Amino acid sequence: MSSSSSRRIVRVGSGGRDERDDLLPTEEPVEFRLVGVPIAVLMRTPGQDEDLGRGFALTEGIIFRPSELVEVRALPGEDGAGRYELIMADGVDIDPEQFRRNFYATSSCGVCGKASIDSVRIAAPPSPTGPIVAAARLGEYMETMRQSQSGFSESGGLHAAAAFDGTGKMLALREDIGRHNAMDKLVGHLSMQRWPLEELTITLSGRVSFELVQKAAVAGLSVLAGVSAASSLAVDLADELGLTVAGFVRPGGFNIYTHSHRIV
Amino acid sequence: MSSSSSRRIVRVGSGGRDERDDLLPTEEPVEFRLVGVPIAVLMRTPGQDEDLGRGFALTEGIIFRPSELVEVRALPGEDGAGRYELIMADGVDIDPEQFRRNFYATSSCGVCGKASIDSVRIAAPPSPTGPIVAAARLGEYMETMRQSQSGFSESGGLHAAAAFDGTGKMLALREDIGRHNAMDKLVGHLSMQRWPLEELTITLSGRVSFELVQKAAVAGLSVLAGVSAASSLAVDLADELGLTVAGFVRPGGFNIYTHSHRIV
Repeated sequence: MSSSSSRRIVRVGSGGRDERDDLLPTEEPVEFRLVGVPIAVLMRTPGQDEDLGRGFALTEGIIFRPSELVEVRALPGEDGAGRYELIMADGVDIDPEQFRRNFYATSSCGVCGKASIDSVRIAAPPSPTGPIVAAARLGEYMETMRQSQSGFSESGGLHAAAAFDGTGKMLALREDIGRHNAMDKLVGHLSMQRWPLEELTITLSGRVSFELVQKAAVAGLSVLAGVSAASSLAVDLADELGLTVAGFVRPGGFNIYTHSHRIV
Repeated sequence: MSSSSSRRIVRVGSGGRDERDDLLPTEEPVEFRLVGVPIAVLMRTPGQDEDLGRGFALTEGIIFRPSELVEVRALPGEDGAGRYELIMADGVDIDPEQFRRNFYATSSCGVCGKASIDSVRIAAPPSPTGPIVAAARLGEYMETMRQSQSGFSESGGLHAAAAFDGTGKMLALREDIGRHNAMDKLVGHLSMQRWPLEELTITLSGRVSFELVQKAAVAGLSVLAGVSAASSLAVDLADELGLTVAGFVRPGGFNIYTHSHRIV
């Protein structure tokens, strides 16, 4: 259950080669089930699996409110693989077969960008107000996240997502080898305290893709700041849904791709 | 059909903020069909879609030899979305419904790491010999790839995969917003000339994950060099299948995670 795993490696440098132990980012499969039926298997970094299951269920549209999912219950595993049952609240009746089809569609992002954007528009809360963030703050947020990435410091291979409130306090940070998983872990964690996740600013260690904007929109988020580029479709979706997306965010400056009024 | 798309952005710097045009990495969905049935929709950067369809079909086990797929034929699209029919050779009969299930399993990486490793072992050619690469060369390859990434230079948001032969010549480079797509485009392109892809060295602009080792193994590749970390499961799979994986590859040095005998 560690975010990094020790392996014996050969280090090649100017002084020749030597064997040593090194820490690698851990990647392992986790399976989520609904009434016993496997509905998703994700390659993830172990840790905060309950957050991941909760966030994934919310951002992929399996559930629409955190209260619908009462527990992400660990199942006994024969081979060390992570397996969890998503326990729904009384009265919440979801056919896993239906979801299996939905998941197929979701993981494939729909048949075309238009269809995807339409389906996201339905799931996302209407026109979020969102926070107003001082431009100088955004670079500081990114610096704070970077300094708090303990998993990345160990293995140099984990992505991160962090949430900041209106006072500039970092509420939570989650790491994972997958960018989407880091986001889902963060959303899952935060959803235990509030929903939708308005008035928060999210920083991301990688590029901002369509799927990350999609997940953010469904969670009610409205400010996404990435350390790297934003894709064309991510920006188009954010533009349409009213989200602010910034990219290449550094203490010295950044780009705002959409709805720049929230950054002053 | 460009790898970058122009958007109007707000640039925030020490001197204030101004509006300007900026190039973003293009991300758009593409759909691949088999006898008219959609079997995969990928978010990709447009360009070399035929390579992508061919490489995806090979590395995801839809076909086992390049000759089984005679054409990746563009379909007329109503809304600008990319759609292609995978035209199989006479006598190649693949039930798309069966594949639809397979794809679900594949995209989910199986129920556990063990199952996935088993299924990859079956699909991969047995114990590749592979090239012997001089350590000094590996850093040079990475430098060559970086200097050739025209899409990355434009938008700063594209991953790359490149192939080098035994003489150190870069045979091909492919870029995409998705790491897996860049690899599939490269494999698809190379598969038109040779199969399996032995004796080549592959450089990757990002981290080396389980799925990339999986794709490489199915293509018969045996030397993978990433600019960033390799995951624990990627290393375990490479170890078992006989692939050499190097990470954090720079001109000054790098790590070898598995089968270091191929780097001398």
